[in-house]
Amino acid sequence: MTEFELIERFFKRGGGTAVLGNGDDCALVAPSPDNVFAMTTDTLVLGRHFLPSLAPERLGRRVVHVNCSDLAAMGAKPRYALLSLTLPEIDTSWVAAFARGLWSALDAFGIELVGGNTTRGPLAITLTALGDVPPAQALTRSGARAGDELWVSGELGDAGWALASLLRERDGAGEPAIVASATQIERYECPTARVALGIALRGVASSCIDISDGLLSEAQHIASASGVDIDIDIGAIPTGIAGIDRSDVWAATAIDAVACDGERRRIARAQMAQHCLLATGDAYELLFTAAPTRHDEVARLLAAHALPGACIGRVSRTGGAPTVRVLDAQSRPMQIAIKGWDHFSHE
Amino acid sequence: MTEFELIERFFKRGGGTAVLGNGDDCALVAPSPDNVFAMTTDTLVLGRHFLPSLAPERLGRRVVHVNCSDLAAMGAKPRYALLSLTLPEIDTSWVAAFARGLWSALDAFGIELVGGNTTRGPLAITLTALGDVPPAQALTRSGARAGDELWVSGELGDAGWALASLLRERDGAGEPAIVASATQIERYECPTARVALGIALRGVASSCIDISDGLLSEAQHIASASGVDIDIDIGAIPTGIAGIDRSDVWAATAIDAVACDGERRRIARAQMAQHCLLATGDAYELLFTAAPTRHDEVARLLAAHALPGACIGRVSRTGGAPTVRVLDAQSRPMQIAIKGWDHFSHE
Repeated sequence: MTEFELIERFFKRGGGTAVLGNGDDCALVAPSPDNVFAMTTDTLVLGRHFLPSLAPERLGRRVVHVNCSDLAAMGAKPRYALLSLTLPEIDTSWVAAFARGLWSALDAFGIELVGGNTTRGPLAITLTALGDVPPAQALTRSGARAGDELWVSGELGDAGWALASLLRERDGAGEPAIVASATQIERYECPTARVALGIALRGVASSCIDISDGLLSEAQHIASASGVDIDIDIGAIPTGIAGIDRSDVWAATAIDAVACDGERRRIARAQMAQHCLLATGDAYELLFTAAPTRHDEVARLLAAHALPGACIGRVSRTGGAPTVRVLDAQSRPMQIAIKGWDHFSHE
Repeated sequence: MTEFELIERFFKRGGGTAVLGNGDDCALVAPSPDNVFAMTTDTLVLGRHFLPSLAPERLGRRVVHVNCSDLAAMGAKPRYALLSLTLPEIDTSWVAAFARGLWSALDAFGIELVGGNTTRGPLAITLTALGDVPPAQALTRSGARAGDELWVSGELGDAGWALASLLRERDGAGEPAIVASATQIERYECPTARVALGIALRGVASSCIDISDGLLSEAQHIASASGVDIDIDIGAIPTGIAGIDRSDVWAATAIDAVACDGERRRIARAQMAQHCLLATGDAYELLFTAAPTRHDEVARLLAAHALPGACIGRVSRTGGAPTVRVLDAQSRPMQIAIKGWDHFSHE
């Protein structure tokens, strides 16, 4: 099968609202009246952003949701996408499954795939997504104000917990023993971009970002862009990770100093859970701020979208460099050693 | 150096016309009044689209021109770009040189880099480019009409000749002996997107495509999209390949049947040259059609842009399946065995 046949068979469709869709040198597209385009691109590389065990259908779904999560964080409505697919070989059944997952997600969001390319090389997928948003209503990172509340749109930590369990399965068991539920594995492999919530938050949220890297680093982005401090109550963060004690001091407890094996395992597990809550990525939930007067409205919006989100902190004036603090159950600042995901500082 | 520091240091700038540029979840952009966006994406993979010997500065330049060549083929004016950079490691001097080449090309076209991402993996670069074009004036592949003339904007074959010479250098010498000039190597490594010409051809050309793969396959795209036949005079194609006899019958001469070594080499070289003229890619010239009444105007436009282009053929009504024919100096159809580049059918 040639490149052209591959595109023709799996990635081309007629119709749509594009002035000119798939099949020329460029697609021709325009935002809706009074809107501008929000535009984002993301690359998923095998072994870095997904494991070889990820089913191709889930991979196709994932690349759409990962991109749309950025659109959601701007309050934009997804419209168009370009796909760049690099494959080591043409395995027709693999491509068919990938395309099924891709189209199911594109269709769910009403996105037209208007172009792209396929090439041979190490497996990697880049999707570029465009969405509509009225410019004055776009949700940026820079609008958080002292007094605002900090919200998250769903549960955190499960994707990181699932990834840790998958990696331990692959590499052989280690400490701490981590077993992820099927729900947690699915949350990791099939994240859901909070597109409808993002649109509903226009005019409600004062700032917004999606949690692709980790809660702390995303909160720091808002703090830095808005010039504010942010306090996060660790006990308030919704999570699907069961039976953890959030008040164990993060990475500060010297596990080696604990004599009892059971106690050592308990602390290691609690630290791992805290790491998943605060610093692992792949959650693709929205982290946003809103004035306290909007509290009930935000709670209603979350409920209307069937999301178990929660108010997890507060914005305050910064004394100097914008800072994110994590508070324990007694509102005492915790010692946090680890920041969010960075593609070049982690392996 | 972290991902964020890398982006901050090499790929971020302030200012520009974007509603919101680099640094949030998405960029916010809009086409100029009465325009739509032409949108394209291209991926360059190490070993497939460029050799390891390509200097990083030239690679940075190349990725911009390759994308803008698609905008040029639509008659669009480049505006915005997103960069997705996958690197095996952070080599600061490599990234600095790549960024220099990238910015020099972006600046030459007046493009704002409004976002993207960096990640770790096998070296690959995806650029997505957006340009402005009034929708009614966009140059598509489907407007060629019987009677139109076929034009090319520059010289063909040199990039293919240079690549063949570089590959022979890498793999050890073979037949035919190919030596490329410095000009030909530069044409291959540093293609120039014909952006100004593309804009000038609005309202003049009836159809247009850029030659990224090969003359024959691009001409076939126009023929198929327009529902016409196309005849190409091989002797009329401008080229920098010196001293070739274009009338040798393509791939049909049985070289093995020729007794004399000198004659065998001459034929092999001529066949290689024909292959470069007709079927190798990387030229990034514009291939377009225009009514014969526009002949002098097109010639003037090419001269005004200092391009050695030429009228190389004619469009005619198709008798059935749209067909591209190559004619020799006596206007006899030649036997052509090879089609354009396809990423999955060639190695």
